[in-house]
Amino acid sequence: MKNPKKINLANIPTPVFKINYNGCTFHIKRDDYTGTELSGNKIRKLEYLLYEAKKLGADYVFTSGGEQSNHARATAIAAASVGIKSKLFLWGQERKNYDGNLFLDKMVGAEFVFLNLKEYQNLEKHISREKNKLERKGKKVYVIPEGGSSPTGIWGYINFVRELKEQLDGKKIKGILVAAGSGGTTAGILLGLHLYNLNFKIFAVNVLHTPEFMTGKIKNLADECNAKYKITRKIDYSRFEVIGGYSGEGYKHIAQEKVHVIRDFARQTGIILDPAYTGKAFYAFNELFLKGKKTSSVLFLHTGGLFGAFAKRKNYLGV
Amino acid sequence: MKNPKKINLANIPTPVFKINYNGCTFHIKRDDYTGTELSGNKIRKLEYLLYEAKKLGADYVFTSGGEQSNHARATAIAAASVGIKSKLFLWGQERKNYDGNLFLDKMVGAEFVFLNLKEYQNLEKHISREKNKLERKGKKVYVIPEGGSSPTGIWGYINFVRELKEQLDGKKIKGILVAAGSGGTTAGILLGLHLYNLNFKIFAVNVLHTPEFMTGKIKNLADECNAKYKITRKIDYSRFEVIGGYSGEGYKHIAQEKVHVIRDFARQTGIILDPAYTGKAFYAFNELFLKGKKTSSVLFLHTGGLFGAFAKRKNYLGV
Repeated sequence: MKNPKKINLANIPTPVFKINYNGCTFHIKRDDYTGTELSGNKIRKLEYLLYEAKKLGADYVFTSGGEQSNHARATAIAAASVGIKSKLFLWGQERKNYDGNLFLDKMVGAEFVFLNLKEYQNLEKHISREKNKLERKGKKVYVIPEGGSSPTGIWGYINFVRELKEQLDGKKIKGILVAAGSGGTTAGILLGLHLYNLNFKIFAVNVLHTPEFMTGKIKNLADECNAKYKITRKIDYSRFEVIGGYSGEGYKHIAQEKVHVIRDFARQTGIILDPAYTGKAFYAFNELFLKGKKTSSVLFLHTGGLFGAFAKRKNYLGV
Repeated sequence: MKNPKKINLANIPTPVFKINYNGCTFHIKRDDYTGTELSGNKIRKLEYLLYEAKKLGADYVFTSGGEQSNHARATAIAAASVGIKSKLFLWGQERKNYDGNLFLDKMVGAEFVFLNLKEYQNLEKHISREKNKLERKGKKVYVIPEGGSSPTGIWGYINFVRELKEQLDGKKIKGILVAAGSGGTTAGILLGLHLYNLNFKIFAVNVLHTPEFMTGKIKNLADECNAKYKITRKIDYSRFEVIGGYSGEGYKHIAQEKVHVIRDFARQTGIILDPAYTGKAFYAFNELFLKGKKTSSVLFLHTGGLFGAFAKRKNYLGV
């Protein structure tokens, strides 16, 4: 096995805190503390991906996602910090008023290609076209998939497990719950559990695709990475479970009963969850692992996303 | 000397990075990395202040500031995280659309008293009235001054100097530049330089009051804290200098030439400065210590404030 190289972008290790919500005590690992503008889980992946981009001598990185994509924002900011231009292919539409993550993207000089849903389904065609255009001008382009979820990117979460293991220190933790959009964080943790011999169960709350598709995607990502880097002889897929049923309102929206839990949690703890990922994941966490209990042995992984909350502030405040 | 006690709220030590801007290399210490919602310099002060509030058994903390006050937001969030209610006395007006820091204040359940400029000049009267009201109901109230700048609060920046000293490690740094609003960060660093024998000069870029007033305020705060905790026999006031002339547009506004520097800096480094404090301080820093140089031995202290940028996003993007 060969651990790939990385550049340092994330402020790690991120802290683990004990939290009490409605009388139930549990642990939270705050991967939203990896930075400020550059906050959240995506930065761990970008450390490996931008190392590759720099090595290639890339002039541009391309990536894609929803218009309030945390990953696209993290990519734009991280790229700016290492002197590479970014072009973001976003499912959404050009607006006069750039808010939330889009505001930050624009501030660091990211270029945009806005695509409607149908166009976004042909994302690869649009990326190829723009890539070819730049390459004809002698520019080098490095393409990062949605969520940074590639066999290289997920090393960020393989090594996250080593960091977490060092922090456990007698804490009674048997599982970890995380929001799953592109599956990379879950796939990385799954491999990390094998590499660092940690007997946890991962609960991945599906926020975007169908549970079946997400399960397949996580398996494929883990398999590809395992084949490329030879981490384990055999992956035990029973160590992760995709939890569906908590994103019926769609990726870009959030139902009012979830907003109530987000608001309640913020008032009790000072922690503000985002509408696309952590808000939905925490709602599931509360239903499945907190309600009616005094303690929970499942750790909640806060993967960031606060800026997305700004773009939904009217929903959040109920005005 | 007796070091006062604190609770742990800040993710510290915060990192020191080497940055290149327009060909000049310098160091930045990122005190915006102290947390996410709870990000910026105010958290170091709140660790000491909320320890006192908890010890007193406070039901409420009161504090004050501009309507986009970073300190008020940090107080509201930190108070929520330790189970204390907050009431914020803000110079500004009630709005339907709570943005920037106000959005976060509202999310964690802060209560508001909005005051116009004339009323804000009689802040103490308004605070007393509300305090008496609550005390008559048997509630305990702990009042935190603007910016957390009290002899207790500034211990956050006394101990910041110890943290910084451990990070210097051969780096050629002779001074530190910081934005000064209420003067507490500067006063704390000034005392820390004495306590930890560091021969730095502090450049405090005045963003709110007149330079004369600010100089007096920093001296008074340092004197009061020194008298209370007996840190040094004699404070050498020549170790700090208040820099005026960089806030002619007023605390709540930011001139377009400063926005240009903020945008340029964001594109080159991925770091987004705020309109009230770090944007103005960095503009001065660039004028006085970067322009025309290859390296600077003055460190820039990033004191946070990103959320304030969201409330000024139209100015920032020039739309």
